Amino acid sequence: MHAEMAEQPDVLAQLADRRADRAAAIAAARPEPLHGIVLVARGSSDQAAIYGRYALEAAVGRPVALAAPSLHTLYGSEADYRGYLAVATSQSGRTPEIVSVLGAMREAGATTVAITNAGEAPLADEADVLIDLRAGEERAVPATKTFTAQVAAFALVAEALGTVPWTGRDWERLPAAVASVLADDLPAREAAEGLVDAAGIVSVGRGYLYAIALEAALKLKETTSILAQGYSAADLRHGPIAVIERDFPVLAFDAPGPAAEDMSALRAELAERGARMLRVGVGAGQLPVPEGLAEPFVAIPGVVRAQQLARELALARGLEPDAPVGLRKVTPTS
Amino acid sequence: MHAEMAEQPDVLAQLADRRADRAAAIAAARPEPLHGIVLVARGSSDQAAIYGRYALEAAVGRPVALAAPSLHTLYGSEADYRGYLAVATSQSGRTPEIVSVLGAMREAGATTVAITNAGEAPLADEADVLIDLRAGEERAVPATKTFTAQVAAFALVAEALGTVPWTGRDWERLPAAVASVLADDLPAREAAEGLVDAAGIVSVGRGYLYAIALEAALKLKETTSILAQGYSAADLRHGPIAVIERDFPVLAFDAPGPAAEDMSALRAELAERGARMLRVGVGAGQLPVPEGLAEPFVAIPGVVRAQQLARELALARGLEPDAPVGLRKVTPTS
Repeated sequence: MHAEMAEQPDVLAQLADRRADRAAAIAAARPEPLHGIVLVARGSSDQAAIYGRYALEAAVGRPVALAAPSLHTLYGSEADYRGYLAVATSQSGRTPEIVSVLGAMREAGATTVAITNAGEAPLADEADVLIDLRAGEERAVPATKTFTAQVAAFALVAEALGTVPWTGRDWERLPAAVASVLADDLPAREAAEGLVDAAGIVSVGRGYLYAIALEAALKLKETTSILAQGYSAADLRHGPIAVIERDFPVLAFDAPGPAAEDMSALRAELAERGARMLRVGVGAGQLPVPEGLAEPFVAIPGVVRAQQLARELALARGLEPDAPVGLRKVTPTS
Repeated sequence: MHAEMAEQPDVLAQLADRRADRAAAIAAARPEPLHGIVLVARGSSDQAAIYGRYALEAAVGRPVALAAPSLHTLYGSEADYRGYLAVATSQSGRTPEIVSVLGAMREAGATTVAITNAGEAPLADEADVLIDLRAGEERAVPATKTFTAQVAAFALVAEALGTVPWTGRDWERLPAAVASVLADDLPAREAAEGLVDAAGIVSVGRGYLYAIALEAALKLKETTSILAQGYSAADLRHGPIAVIERDFPVLAFDAPGPAAEDMSALRAELAERGARMLRVGVGAGQLPVPEGLAEPFVAIPGVVRAQQLARELALARGLEPDAPVGLRKVTPTS
């Protein structure tokens, strides 16, 4: 996991280099009129898709849905997907459920895009356009470099289809921002020391950083077996905040931008409840992220902080972060 | 909470009586062509919307999306919603975020439906069609009778728009099925005794019962402050299953139908990991639900079992289930 985390700046840099080429292929395949977009994924890939859900709807100006795979695999859905772009992402490109759902959507009229780390895998065969992540083999069960590459790939798809709140400069700065987080693992180690005996952890973000809060919780669950749970700031207030009592650890993601004020208000509410706050963001005291990136791009070094925390916390708990008990690299759900 | 839970058979019966009238209004408002459907909700209402997401896509044959409210409230989304049906649900009809998102979608071209327990509330003003739940005032913070009414309302919208896997007989049998669960609270009390010291609970379902697993987890969090978390069977296998170690409590929902085999396989996997299993379903040893309902309708008596469990577990932990610490009836997120 550590070695693969370290490859992230290079993986992101090569993806930035291929932006123009892949964007042209996606723009050429776009259905006209475009009625909407559907995203298909599970696990870590699903958190990347939730990031894509925000980026794409804002860029394209048409509703974006996360697929309910069981409608296709169990209930024999006969929905009409003409006028839709369907984007499926699976690191292995081999999860049977993801391959069959993308295939069913293509048969039902969708134009299909696959985002995968395995350009030769069955998922690519169902795709009109392939974004091959070229992240290299990922041996650790908890995905790291493929996850950040998937997030970047969704940003690439969004800018291929519409107007986005970031520029080429963000792509240029991204590898160095991630490298600077990776070079500085002391904050994660210190934070992990305080969490060794935690019974649960809540992570929270809003807007583009909501997806990262979900991924942080999944990474913590996978590596540490602690019941970590991710929320949007608004969803947390609608009930689940009841679990936040004195000293309950909360990992809070934010970035300068439209969601910052709401996150700041939530941090104040949580402080009143006595939560033990770990903030991940630009200028954060606990888990800082470099400044100078547009809000949606802060998600990527932000999630690298969460990867560090998950790994350090697993080690502090005497666990092997690369091979969690009872997890496999390809999960054959159908 | 107890008194309001007891009203559920009557609330469901009066909604069944108004089915034909509301279905006609929805069918008349349906956009043609219908490009897709978008659902808007938070908290318990959001779990009802997830049920609606399955029922509607299967019935209508067009993709259904859950809204990302912050795109409208924070990021100023200018998405085009022409050809879309937008269905918003809020028990109070007053959550500012839900009202403003439905209003924004209507301005962007959507035909709008409001499902609310407050037909005079601001949400109704943004709706072309109103489904007034008429469940009566809900005083306890954890929603019960309004939640089951919302689920039934989504079933009503689905059958107004397409073909569904249930019939009028299911509507007729539903009040009695719920009454029979309510009359038998011993199983929930016994289950609660075994969970008094639980640090976490995972609930799981698939297909139509996935939404109910999410609602069960929310109800447990709200009333007991235990970090309960809901998953689909497939999502649980993609990583979070790592937290299930010996004696970890799992609440598993199932019903005869297309998802039953997958749930049965998952229960076997969890048993191998040593999970403490509490099954909610037809013929379940722990938390039984009456037979004779179509799979999607088993969700309603199934969630009543979860309400009973949440209430009994709160009482067993010395808590007041009606008024959880730090929660309010209307959560003013924006």
